[in-house]
Amino acid sequence: MFKINENYQKLPGSYLFSTIAKKVAAFSEANPGKEIIRLGIGDVTQPLAPAIIEAMHKAVEEMGNADTFRGYAPDLGYGFLREAIVEHDYKPRGCNISADEVFVSDGAKSDSANIQEIFSAGNRIAVCDPVYPVYVDSNVMAGRAGVYHGESGTWSNVVYMPCTMENGFVPEFPKEVPDMIYLCLPNNPTGTTITKSQLQEWVDYANRVGAVIIYDGAYEAYISEEDVAHSIYECEGAKECAIELKSYSKNAGFTGVRLGYTIVPKELKCGEVSLNQMWARRHGTKFNGAPYIVQRAGEATYSPEGKAQLEGQVAYYMKNASAIKNGLQSAGYTVFGGVNAPYIWLKTPDNMTSWEFFDFLLERANVVGTPGSGFGPSGEGYFRLTAFGSYENTLTALGRIKGL
Amino acid sequence: MFKINENYQKLPGSYLFSTIAKKVAAFSEANPGKEIIRLGIGDVTQPLAPAIIEAMHKAVEEMGNADTFRGYAPDLGYGFLREAIVEHDYKPRGCNISADEVFVSDGAKSDSANIQEIFSAGNRIAVCDPVYPVYVDSNVMAGRAGVYHGESGTWSNVVYMPCTMENGFVPEFPKEVPDMIYLCLPNNPTGTTITKSQLQEWVDYANRVGAVIIYDGAYEAYISEEDVAHSIYECEGAKECAIELKSYSKNAGFTGVRLGYTIVPKELKCGEVSLNQMWARRHGTKFNGAPYIVQRAGEATYSPEGKAQLEGQVAYYMKNASAIKNGLQSAGYTVFGGVNAPYIWLKTPDNMTSWEFFDFLLERANVVGTPGSGFGPSGEGYFRLTAFGSYENTLTALGRIKGL
Repeated sequence: MFKINENYQKLPGSYLFSTIAKKVAAFSEANPGKEIIRLGIGDVTQPLAPAIIEAMHKAVEEMGNADTFRGYAPDLGYGFLREAIVEHDYKPRGCNISADEVFVSDGAKSDSANIQEIFSAGNRIAVCDPVYPVYVDSNVMAGRAGVYHGESGTWSNVVYMPCTMENGFVPEFPKEVPDMIYLCLPNNPTGTTITKSQLQEWVDYANRVGAVIIYDGAYEAYISEEDVAHSIYECEGAKECAIELKSYSKNAGFTGVRLGYTIVPKELKCGEVSLNQMWARRHGTKFNGAPYIVQRAGEATYSPEGKAQLEGQVAYYMKNASAIKNGLQSAGYTVFGGVNAPYIWLKTPDNMTSWEFFDFLLERANVVGTPGSGFGPSGEGYFRLTAFGSYENTLTALGRIKGL
Repeated sequence: MFKINENYQKLPGSYLFSTIAKKVAAFSEANPGKEIIRLGIGDVTQPLAPAIIEAMHKAVEEMGNADTFRGYAPDLGYGFLREAIVEHDYKPRGCNISADEVFVSDGAKSDSANIQEIFSAGNRIAVCDPVYPVYVDSNVMAGRAGVYHGESGTWSNVVYMPCTMENGFVPEFPKEVPDMIYLCLPNNPTGTTITKSQLQEWVDYANRVGAVIIYDGAYEAYISEEDVAHSIYECEGAKECAIELKSYSKNAGFTGVRLGYTIVPKELKCGEVSLNQMWARRHGTKFNGAPYIVQRAGEATYSPEGKAQLEGQVAYYMKNASAIKNGLQSAGYTVFGGVNAPYIWLKTPDNMTSWEFFDFLLERANVVGTPGSGFGPSGEGYFRLTAFGSYENTLTALGRIKGL
């Protein structure tokens, strides 16, 4: 008789965003006249930039002609995209990354969930708290997380690194030495980040204790401050200890297009074993390449027109972020993030819990955000708003919140 | 110090298709004047059908307008595609599949590699021999295959079901009872299949012994005979024991577009645990939906125009298959497949090994095929040719082979 992967049974039942969806649906049904503004989930709203649309039309056309039709893509990505990534995302930052260290994928969510597969089930992971749930859940499924304690909302075998206003949202080196460290910087959900020299300390720490850093740079395009690294490979020694995940979802609006990439440096080894080779094998066996049309769309993000249009898009969302940040501050809220990331992380007022503030905001302002506690125990008492709405909706939502 | 997933170290070094590529490259370099015809890898060559191109252009257009832009797709696939699948692939065959049993993915290769994740690492798998390498390799990576015996080319903990001319390529119930049974029908690489009543026996067997069947129906569109099932759910009791994987790669030429789906019936349970729920959780955590544009392309395969155009494409490839089959037979070869599948499986002449025949064909006819032994020990002495070339190239290749 076949048996299931019992680790799935350990996962707590309800998922943050489905709980939110249910609450919003119930409120909508009870209050049909109210216009709800959603600043909760991190999905973009601006359409794809013209340079990208043009590239996709062209690629579609190619797929319809026998002479230019493309079948199976190279497992690891087309050369034109891997070269463009090296040329535009790494060379200008002084990072010595070569095309055969770039693995094109269908998005950073998949990569961030899959990357743990090449590591031992016995490894201990460390995550920031609050945290993007996929890092933890994928490790639970692989049997690496131990058991869940419902009361504390933590897993017995996961090392948590609290990031709160008390430590300026800068994770501290954990007491127990982990094997794998997940860092998302600029951070989802807090919208905060750390300086390049602080990141260098993490790289030094990882090299010292023999840990690997899984570095999620999905929000890199939103960095506005000078002393923040755009890639972990700007730090010395990072190629010996770090894997970097990148996404086109937030800088180019590819949430429904699906494209990302992962850098696994050739210097990253466990004894004699190359992790670059392992990830290539994993990619070649369990993945079959990103669509040609989508890879051409990715390439278009690096053309002069594409770059200019995307800078405009990022600026649009960051105008929202500033508006939310400044507006909430002037209304007396304590607010973080929104400078190097499209997320605003606010302290709930009057000692409300995250979910109490969620209900309060939904009922009184008809605005949907995300309760901080949904991202981990240290998120309790915080609340996330995103800058991905339209400017008009963002201002309307803000006006309502100020009027409370 | 972090450790790696040691199972990766068990995988034998070189991969079938990379070995072929190296041999072909070496031959090309040594013989620059020779025109090589590739009937090896299973990639299609016909461009996407007009109805699909039109649907993709329209979807690209939508992505460029704020009013019609689509962000994150539903994890499990858009309703329009899941409903079309039920309506066109299942209802007409009398299979009672509902949309919430359909999981849209980026292709059947990923699904066939990922599906094992929801099962216990202690399960024993059974595969046909020869076999599509992904089934085995993904289980090796998960630690389910035991150790590799280089001499026999087999894994210690895998149950092999030989499919050879002696048993008419019909797998027999194994002596050791497996927990998970992989069946690819019509078969890659042999191009053969079994009757619906033979498949019913497998369903009955699985239900009797408590095994789950992973049923890969990637070549379903090529079925031409009446008594062959187009879905395993045509068999009674299959919803209690079978998962079905489907691909758009071979019926619609989506090898570079990337779309597939998996059916996990709600009746399929391990004790009280629903595998449908488990796969939904896996999809929701480790995947982020297929691209909107690609899902619209999938939908277009079901329109009246799309269907007619794809029937034409399948007929084109099957004309190649017939030409190869008949041509080789008339030249004295013993040939299988090619009736319900785009693959021709031939017995190598003069007791040549598969690789000897590969070299012979490459050097003497400048034709590339795939050595049967690359698919498993029982593939030794066989050779695969595919019908996915152009008709002209296929006839040229055939002429050369006949002239040997």
